Amino acid sequence: MIKIGVVGGTGYTGVELLRILAQHPQAELRAITSRKEAGMAVSELFPSLRGHVDLAFSDPAAAALEQCDVVFFATPHGVAMNDARRLVDAGVRLIDISADFRIQNVAEWEKWYKMKHACPELIPQAIYGLPEVNRVAIRKARIIANPGCYPTAVQLGLLPLLQAGAVDAAHLIADAKSGVSGAGRKAETHILFSEASDNFKAYGVPGHRHGVEIVQCLAQIIGSDIGLTFVPHLTPMIRGIHATLYARITHEFDFQKLYEERYARERFVDVLPPGSHPDTRSVRAANTCRIALHRPQGGDTLVVLSVIDNLVKGASGQAVQNMNLMFGLDESLGLAQVPILP
Amino acid sequence: MIKIGVVGGTGYTGVELLRILAQHPQAELRAITSRKEAGMAVSELFPSLRGHVDLAFSDPAAAALEQCDVVFFATPHGVAMNDARRLVDAGVRLIDISADFRIQNVAEWEKWYKMKHACPELIPQAIYGLPEVNRVAIRKARIIANPGCYPTAVQLGLLPLLQAGAVDAAHLIADAKSGVSGAGRKAETHILFSEASDNFKAYGVPGHRHGVEIVQCLAQIIGSDIGLTFVPHLTPMIRGIHATLYARITHEFDFQKLYEERYARERFVDVLPPGSHPDTRSVRAANTCRIALHRPQGGDTLVVLSVIDNLVKGASGQAVQNMNLMFGLDESLGLAQVPILP
Amino acid sequence: MIKIGVVGGTGYTGVELLRILAQHPQAELRAITSRKEAGMAVSELFPSLRGHVDLAFSDPAAAALEQCDVVFFATPHGVAMNDARRLVDAGVRLIDISADFRIQNVAEWEKWYKMKHACPELIPQAIYGLPEVNRVAIRKARIIANPGCYPTAVQLGLLPLLQAGAVDAAHLIADAKSGVSGAGRKAETHILFSEASDNFKAYGVPGHRHGVEIVQCLAQIIGSDIGLTFVPHLTPMIRGIHATLYARITHEFDFQKLYEERYARERFVDVLPPGSHPDTRSVRAANTCRIALHRPQGGDTLVVLSVIDNLVKGASGQAVQNMNLMFGLDESLGLAQVPILP
Amino acid sequence: MIKIGVVGGTGYTGVELLRILAQHPQAELRAITSRKEAGMAVSELFPSLRGHVDLAFSDPAAAALEQCDVVFFATPHGVAMNDARRLVDAGVRLIDISADFRIQNVAEWEKWYKMKHACPELIPQAIYGLPEVNRVAIRKARIIANPGCYPTAVQLGLLPLLQAGAVDAAHLIADAKSGVSGAGRKAETHILFSEASDNFKAYGVPGHRHGVEIVQCLAQIIGSDIGLTFVPHLTPMIRGIHATLYARITHEFDFQKLYEERYARERFVDVLPPGSHPDTRSVRAANTCRIALHRPQGGDTLVVLSVIDNLVKGASGQAVQNMNLMFGLDESLGLAQVPILP
Repeated sequence: MIKIGVVGGTGYTGVELLRILAQHPQAELRAITSRKEAGMAVSELFPSLRGHVDLAFSDPAAAALEQCDVVFFATPHGVAMNDARRLVDAGVRLIDISADFRIQNVAEWEKWYKMKHACPELIPQAIYGLPEVNRVAIRKARIIANPGCYPTAVQLGLLPLLQAGAVDAAHLIADAKSGVSGAGRKAETHILFSEASDNFKAYGVPGHRHGVEIVQCLAQIIGSDIGLTFVPHLTPMIRGIHATLYARITHEFDFQKLYEERYARERFVDVLPPGSHPDTRSVRAANTCRIALHRPQGGDTLVVLSVIDNLVKGASGQAVQNMNLMFGLDESLGLAQVPILP
Repeated sequence: MIKIGVVGGTGYTGVELLRILAQHPQAELRAITSRKEAGMAVSELFPSLRGHVDLAFSDPAAAALEQCDVVFFATPHGVAMNDARRLVDAGVRLIDISADFRIQNVAEWEKWYKMKHACPELIPQAIYGLPEVNRVAIRKARIIANPGCYPTAVQLGLLPLLQAGAVDAAHLIADAKSGVSGAGRKAETHILFSEASDNFKAYGVPGHRHGVEIVQCLAQIIGSDIGLTFVPHLTPMIRGIHATLYARITHEFDFQKLYEERYARERFVDVLPPGSHPDTRSVRAANTCRIALHRPQGGDTLVVLSVIDNLVKGASGQAVQNMNLMFGLDESLGLAQVPILP
Repeated sequence: MIKIGVVGGTGYTGVELLRILAQHPQAELRAITSRKEAGMAVSELFPSLRGHVDLAFSDPAAAALEQCDVVFFATPHGVAMNDARRLVDAGVRLIDISADFRIQNVAEWEKWYKMKHACPELIPQAIYGLPEVNRVAIRKARIIANPGCYPTAVQLGLLPLLQAGAVDAAHLIADAKSGVSGAGRKAETHILFSEASDNFKAYGVPGHRHGVEIVQCLAQIIGSDIGLTFVPHLTPMIRGIHATLYARITHEFDFQKLYEERYARERFVDVLPPGSHPDTRSVRAANTCRIALHRPQGGDTLVVLSVIDNLVKGASGQAVQNMNLMFGLDESLGLAQVPILP
Repeated sequence: MIKIGVVGGTGYTGVELLRILAQHPQAELRAITSRKEAGMAVSELFPSLRGHVDLAFSDPAAAALEQCDVVFFATPHGVAMNDARRLVDAGVRLIDISADFRIQNVAEWEKWYKMKHACPELIPQAIYGLPEVNRVAIRKARIIANPGCYPTAVQLGLLPLLQAGAVDAAHLIADAKSGVSGAGRKAETHILFSEASDNFKAYGVPGHRHGVEIVQCLAQIIGSDIGLTFVPHLTPMIRGIHATLYARITHEFDFQKLYEERYARERFVDVLPPGSHPDTRSVRAANTCRIALHRPQGGDTLVVLSVIDNLVKGASGQAVQNMNLMFGLDESLGLAQVPILP
């Protein structure tokens, strides 16, 4: 059994992580911390966990996280970096679902996240936890930078094209739509039910942190610069990301075959038959990314549709997938659940 | 492994049954029938089942249902009764998620369901599949009349009071709210998104089939007549039933204790601490009923709040719970999943 | 033209009031105050008002409210009572959409609203602004206590029965469902989109301020005590209240006729034909209350269905209706808009 | 007063047209036809119209449409073209909210709408009813082809760029998101509440009728070919279209100024300040298009955000705007309503 600590269990990635771990045959939850809710039973805050998680939130200072095999950070940005040194030195592996270790360029990170990084020396050790790209490195990692939700959907959707050199990499467009849970469980006006329901809007068009993350990772993979216009939108649904990706074809391929072969051995990437339009609910509460390809009117623009559940493949599910890899388990252990439909 | 047939796999109780059975360690799906979709892969209609269910829909006439151990009917009312005789004679057990065997009084059934019953002689053999009441009989049953969604929520909410003789059984009120999936996956105008969302309404106030079912079952349990005003409402959510129950107290009890003791050994009924207000999402996609008790302002009216997922404890989950009982398995096998929140 | 001030224009009753007043032929908006947003254009916070409201929010201290003919308070509870004395002394009429003047018994108010009342001596002057009951007094009022949203729907639904002495007034039940905008535009976790959508729950079952308001007002009308069990629920829609009311019949009437006659001359109360089930969207964005009556199975329990838009007839629309009465205008001036459907 | 007939009053564009006309000071509704609901009071089908529309649906054959000044067609495609000749010959003006007269190339129309056109000889007389482009011609038109909802949002968003020759017109991208009411009030499975809510999907990516309409109209305006990748998506909201438009800059302009000047005198197009992100609810139930411009990271791709209410500026509101022009009225008569927020 893997001894597990969770820092920050009161947000949506936290409760989703607990849901998955509570059903994972090798997971032994040791501590769930929350400064604010210390002492309260986890299942009092989240009655959905009654009978599944018996722990109470503990104060981060008091939790014996050093005795865990792995600690997940389901915290706001800027928390994991403060605890990382201590845990890594104690031999604990760390999976950071927040963004503290995603951007290799510290100055860039500090610009976009508007704070000083607490342990820049650890960033080079962190492995970007997208198993479909970094599986080998993940197995040996001490620190996992778990990918953002948009970056997961966009990268899985664009990877085969870029690795094949099939499209104009300087002018990619990612028009992405996210359910409201992607904004977290913070008390903020713009994500109130009466603001966000029966409504649709773009946000962050001038620039968004996830755009930087995508560009960095894709550029590393293909070894040259990337140009991306990334426009996220807030969609009146709880879970789900739908990325609609546009790329200008520069070299002809059998694109359907290209994708099917690239992902043939990937358990959590599902390339749909030609002509498909994946809906986000087809992956609701599951760790799957579904992808479909279109070439409208036979033109020179390829359209890729990529859907994930932002809280699972876009956050906590992928984090557990990474844990499975790090501890030599079957990559899909505890992650085989059927999506919830309707 | 239990060899299983499913008749009518294209509706919401059907796809939910497939979701549960696909993860059930003792279930072997043999056939899923649909007259209309015969030949189509199940996962084409429901991409959420890709990789989990490999069967295609088969024509009801061609499916070798007689070779199954159990056949579930996830059909509209009036289908199961036509196949029941043949299957029962072939030694197949039958779990009818529709209403064909729920009402013992044939004339009453025919009045409310507006058709002639095809096998009235089998009705007395059918066991009403509410395990919390009929567990012993269910184990030996050949035909299970799986309870309706509203009746499950209302009966579990009222049972302890009625069995204790604590309230005026002649003037019960059940104000019940259901998610739209309770209306099925039929193409009907009133359940279109643009009609049912951002909207709320009562329906069937003059009389509703489920009112008859509740009255019959509760009257049998306490051995005397019941008076119930039952008002269902359509609520803009996909899944979930919230029953708000009102009863006039005639004999004083420690009501919290009464409920906790009544359900102490019930795996799927969760009595919440005093002061609780269960929300429907706390049981989303799970086979649990959560109940809370209130006595507003210390008056003589008791308010019971009872929530279920209409497609799970209110339909397909309860059907699998019944299957487990019929085949001597652990009652909760394949039904231990954590609710999906948010 | 009526010179109008609005205190607290950043909440939902505020923006709804501005929407209505912007289209009112006799309304001249002079000042809209907000301590927090002072200086910002109203249409910057609410782009829906671009081209309709040209004012900026002003600081409450700086706004010349004394020079208005009438001042609306669309504030949280506890604000209006602090300004009331000054405005009344300046000859300004005051319409308080919050609860500061609704409860005649000061001790009761202080218990439920958990603060000391700032001007108890003005409470007796305040007229409860339910035009269907207090039309004559409203015309001459200096201070209007605009009714709460639930109380409007429940009182209009029960009035004819109680005034006729037709039912057991000691055991009334009001099972009420409200859209989330009823909770206001405050940044609170429980009304986030991801908490409140696809979910349903009761709240405040042990006791709710609006229950007290309803009981006080109905008791005054019939001149004797009232017993009411009031259970509010949070419903995943933006606007709308649906009150389902249960009363035990003590004297027989032609109830349909009773209601039709009681409301025959009421412009904003619409008694539906027998057998109807009003949906909340049928009054969306309009100042109408629609009511339908049912007597299920011919029993002794009457079921009344009453729907309003909580922000219009349940708040700002009714406030303008009161203003019309106070200034001798046609009661429906500026309030004749057709509901928005779908 | 303008004598008005409405053919097809049971769909969403129909009921929205009735809502607007009921409040229009110069509109006199003479007949509302529905083959299926003939004889039923309009307000029985749509209780929101109680007290506002007193007519009953009449049979199309019996309605004296020839005596109207103008007849609106709020019908499925393929109906208006059958009645057009007769009405035009009788001197009646015709505003077709469906697509029968939108595509000038008959073969193209027949290919996309999969039927034979009944009166190809009338197509050249039809004026495409986008007032911001065709105002002069609309005033004298006998037949108006009212634009589609997507085409309205996309064209208003792209017009200034194309007319200025500022972007690569051969590689435009329109990623458009529509509320579900855009699919009409037909009983179809995919737009059921339980299918379309808490879900998001693209559709029609290989090709969509509205793409053809947009390309034809924009090409006419600039006098040369257009290349457009148009991807529509179904969004879980009732009303609203959000078009996110991408264009590669070929000639530099002050784009904000370009848009502000182009639409300076347009009553129903609102160019937002730099940095804005319009939400669809900011135009809910109103005849306004709001537009914002972005140039992410100062690159060579311009992003235009364009929102409308699909039932108003995208259908019935624009139809009334056209009527106002045709009858010499103030273009905004009856269309000045404030959007509904929240």
